Amino acid sequence: MCIQHDQEVMHKLFSNIHLPLLDVTAAPPATPFTNKKVGVVFCGRQAPGCHDLVCGLVDMLCSGSAGNRVLGFVGGSHGLFNKHAVEITPELCAAFCGSGGLEMLGRTVDRIKTVEEMQQVRKACLDLGLDGLVLVGGARTNTDAAYLAEYLKEQKVSTAVVGVPCGIEGSMVNEFVEASVGFDSAAKAMAQLVGNTAIDGSSARKYYYFLKLMDGSTTGGKIPTSHVALEVALETKPNLLLLFEEVDDKRLTLRELVHEIAEVVAQRAAAGKNFGTVLVAEGLLAAIPEFRALITELETLPMPSTVDKVLPELTQWSKAIFTSLPDFIQLQLLLARQSNAALQLSQLETERLMAWLVEDELKERRKKGTFKGSFSPVCQFLGYQARCSMPTDFDSDYAYTLGGTAAILVANGCSGYMAVASDLAQPVQSWRVGGVPFTTMLQVPPSSSTETFRPRPSIFPRKVDLEGGAFRSWLDVRKLCAREEMYENPGPIQLSGPSAGRVSSTIATRFSYLQELAKLREHLEAESTRCRPGCDPPHVMVATQSLSTLNSILDELAGPMAATPSIERVQK
Amino acid sequence: MCIQHDQEVMHKLFSNIHLPLLDVTAAPPATPFTNKKVGVVFCGRQAPGCHDLVCGLVDMLCSGSAGNRVLGFVGGSHGLFNKHAVEITPELCAAFCGSGGLEMLGRTVDRIKTVEEMQQVRKACLDLGLDGLVLVGGARTNTDAAYLAEYLKEQKVSTAVVGVPCGIEGSMVNEFVEASVGFDSAAKAMAQLVGNTAIDGSSARKYYYFLKLMDGSTTGGKIPTSHVALEVALETKPNLLLLFEEVDDKRLTLRELVHEIAEVVAQRAAAGKNFGTVLVAEGLLAAIPEFRALITELETLPMPSTVDKVLPELTQWSKAIFTSLPDFIQLQLLLARQSNAALQLSQLETERLMAWLVEDELKERRKKGTFKGSFSPVCQFLGYQARCSMPTDFDSDYAYTLGGTAAILVANGCSGYMAVASDLAQPVQSWRVGGVPFTTMLQVPPSSSTETFRPRPSIFPRKVDLEGGAFRSWLDVRKLCAREEMYENPGPIQLSGPSAGRVSSTIATRFSYLQELAKLREHLEAESTRCRPGCDPPHVMVATQSLSTLNSILDELAGPMAATPSIERVQK
Repeated sequence: MCIQHDQEVMHKLFSNIHLPLLDVTAAPPATPFTNKKVGVVFCGRQAPGCHDLVCGLVDMLCSGSAGNRVLGFVGGSHGLFNKHAVEITPELCAAFCGSGGLEMLGRTVDRIKTVEEMQQVRKACLDLGLDGLVLVGGARTNTDAAYLAEYLKEQKVSTAVVGVPCGIEGSMVNEFVEASVGFDSAAKAMAQLVGNTAIDGSSARKYYYFLKLMDGSTTGGKIPTSHVALEVALETKPNLLLLFEEVDDKRLTLRELVHEIAEVVAQRAAAGKNFGTVLVAEGLLAAIPEFRALITELETLPMPSTVDKVLPELTQWSKAIFTSLPDFIQLQLLLARQSNAALQLSQLETERLMAWLVEDELKERRKKGTFKGSFSPVCQFLGYQARCSMPTDFDSDYAYTLGGTAAILVANGCSGYMAVASDLAQPVQSWRVGGVPFTTMLQVPPSSSTETFRPRPSIFPRKVDLEGGAFRSWLDVRKLCAREEMYENPGPIQLSGPSAGRVSSTIATRFSYLQELAKLREHLEAESTRCRPGCDPPHVMVATQSLSTLNSILDELAGPMAATPSIERVQK
Repeated sequence: MCIQHDQEVMHKLFSNIHLPLLDVTAAPPATPFTNKKVGVVFCGRQAPGCHDLVCGLVDMLCSGSAGNRVLGFVGGSHGLFNKHAVEITPELCAAFCGSGGLEMLGRTVDRIKTVEEMQQVRKACLDLGLDGLVLVGGARTNTDAAYLAEYLKEQKVSTAVVGVPCGIEGSMVNEFVEASVGFDSAAKAMAQLVGNTAIDGSSARKYYYFLKLMDGSTTGGKIPTSHVALEVALETKPNLLLLFEEVDDKRLTLRELVHEIAEVVAQRAAAGKNFGTVLVAEGLLAAIPEFRALITELETLPMPSTVDKVLPELTQWSKAIFTSLPDFIQLQLLLARQSNAALQLSQLETERLMAWLVEDELKERRKKGTFKGSFSPVCQFLGYQARCSMPTDFDSDYAYTLGGTAAILVANGCSGYMAVASDLAQPVQSWRVGGVPFTTMLQVPPSSSTETFRPRPSIFPRKVDLEGGAFRSWLDVRKLCAREEMYENPGPIQLSGPSAGRVSSTIATRFSYLQELAKLREHLEAESTRCRPGCDPPHVMVATQSLSTLNSILDELAGPMAATPSIERVQK
């Protein structure tokens, strides 16, 4: 069985894959934590809220308890490797609280992976005497944190490693993690810009705006997602939305995709509308099979390079595609790569390529007389203007809460945990906080026949669920959006007033796994109480039979799966 | 005398150049206006607040008074020429109140200039029985309005023509007009994006952001201004600000300008800072003498064109510059032109050109060993995302007020006036509203020896005053900004809370001419009262001598100038 195999792989790499879930409660702790020294590192990319996270960490550790100190590593992972840290005081926090960016500490590479890097971190933890280390970032950072926690445990270093889910791409989510810090703010900041632009289009009625939306994961990893693009589409109702996941799911070729866009343009032109707004997810091209093949081939070649050098190295298929692309895309494919050798999809002007290809097809249609409109594309990349936005109230609260939770986890020596908060669609007062072991989130990648390396279990970015509520809301309106101007402009992020509390719909519509688990536990307890010794024997019989049936069903559904981790309580 | 000549030119074109200034007061009108029919046209480009302006117009005419109607022309000037109008009801207003863009009515070309166009407008006014026509736009629109008012008067058409100063570029300002509707919102929306981007830069510390800021006037006219760029710089404190006016004033060549930027990059690199944010005013290239010569030559050639076709037509100088430019700029210079045949500076990737040229110079420096840093430019054009922003509270209030003022002016038959509000740095309750005759704002362009046409007096866009308070504030900090990261992020526009009421500093620091005039009048009245018949004769002697001296001084200062127009009152 696959699951059997996965368990074996996990067991080999991690000494304890049955750590319990942790619930943090507000009861006074038996022994207040004192003289703790905790380091914090920005490993991921810029996400609104990261400063508030540090504020939460510092406030939880330093207000009320004596002798606790927080060290911030300057310049991210590099700072950690080089033990370049500054003490973060409540005064420093006050200066950065509520602001965007990672200016407080900066960032560099987002990787702690090689043995050498692990050793450097070990040395830093020992030399600085850290009781805890909080890593802030997305799926990759938290995967690294899992391995680091295991490594330090092996090495008998007592520093507790805790991760926090951050990243505008919003893909560091799963059953336990309902949202990634920064997603709400970045999506809203981009929605404001898309809303403005769409209305600009319908005012002058002469441009097609092709807007590419930054998805943090494409600059940080190889697996793109389109959560931001989908959320922005739900907020603004553009004429078209090109999602990585949908194109991937439908296995669309470039020509088919372009044809679909051209159809909408032609349909609108027939109604006298030679304008519109098209949202393009940053990672789109990675979803197109022939393009993906080309990218894979290019990634094996040294870059930067030139067309002449690269062409002989490509297969016939990829060569044909490469030469069919406009010059500007060819050049962009041959740029220098970032540290992980992955192609920088964010540097690829996907939106311009799409506009160029659509224009090409429309020229053909015009020749045949099937298109009589005009087509003036204006291309824009929305990202850098938004990812350092001031955090929304939601992100401020969420990040601050996670910072405080991380503090409690490290102070309690809970290593190998991610700080989480759940029931996020509820008011802050109703949120539940706790820790989830990294091991519950690691997945063993499917092995392939050509595989020569041992599979490395990782936390994978979660893609947009094409069966999920958010995407289905888009399906409900997309036809109308293509034809008409259903544009909505949510306006700038408000920090007070009635709209300040609104949470983005991706987050608000999420199924709360932990909440369901809690309900389940309540039911079990009710059963147990109801059927206590002394109760009516027929009741016990009914209950027993019923539960037995349920267990058989679940066995059938799930196979021999590991049990849900149990829940323990840690206290502030 | 020049002034003599100007007066003659004006007298030939305008029947009455001595119309009084009008003050609108809140006293109940002697006869309330009823059964008025007023048209409104969006002649200018998208500016936040234009919808609120229409709301103010409709509320003033339709609430309380009977039988008044407002007609909105669909698709701007084209709608006016074709008599395509819809009635604007308070219900329609409610749907658009507080939103950006011109979606309510749309826009097309922004010109009412030829005799044929004037005749079409005359016909529309007569056929629809308009008592008034409100034109919304910038310097060009209000110039057109001046000529239209005169033309209709000549033609004995009783429709009163009134203009309203709108446009994000903020250059439709003068002694009487303190601000242009939309400037405050657009500048703040762009400042938010620049602030986010600058902080992104100082978080990752590896990119140079070259941000070109849209200046509405370059898309609408041939005279660029940099008010938006200056205001944004004051709000965000970038490392560099490249202003059209300053480069123009210093007569910098392209090489000198590039050298200045490279110096700052090199200085920062020496301090270990290979990142920064550079603001580029959209019209910058028009300020560079050799580039301007090239543009002028290109504007006489038919476009779109190709490099091969164009080169033989250029002078040796321009040919040399043209061929020294990178391909992407050459191609952009040869694009199709907009209706007025002016080169579309907004379509020229000035920011990319600057980055390219700086990179080129840094390569030279690196060869010589005088530059050891890295230089990764990221270029962005901020415009379409901002010019349809939701209006700030200031712009909403200002536009609504001007709409109401325009209603009073047309209802009173005051043709040839611009609706104005002054003392804008004060709370709304203290604003003064009124009308200023277009003739006081028209300027006769300086005649040149080669001139073959009769000069056409126009309202010219006001450039950034390099002696003014706003620019001097920038001078005070620019050295520090170049060296350090003084970045400020004003954040998103707030519609409630403490920062909602803040007015942009360009507007807040303006000298209120009308307020000064009012003070003068108060002094004169005090003099007159104090020296009334029966007062002490020596007092009269002192006052007479003193006033006589003052008049001599003013005569000396001003030459035989036209008197300041007198002020009359109209009432709602």
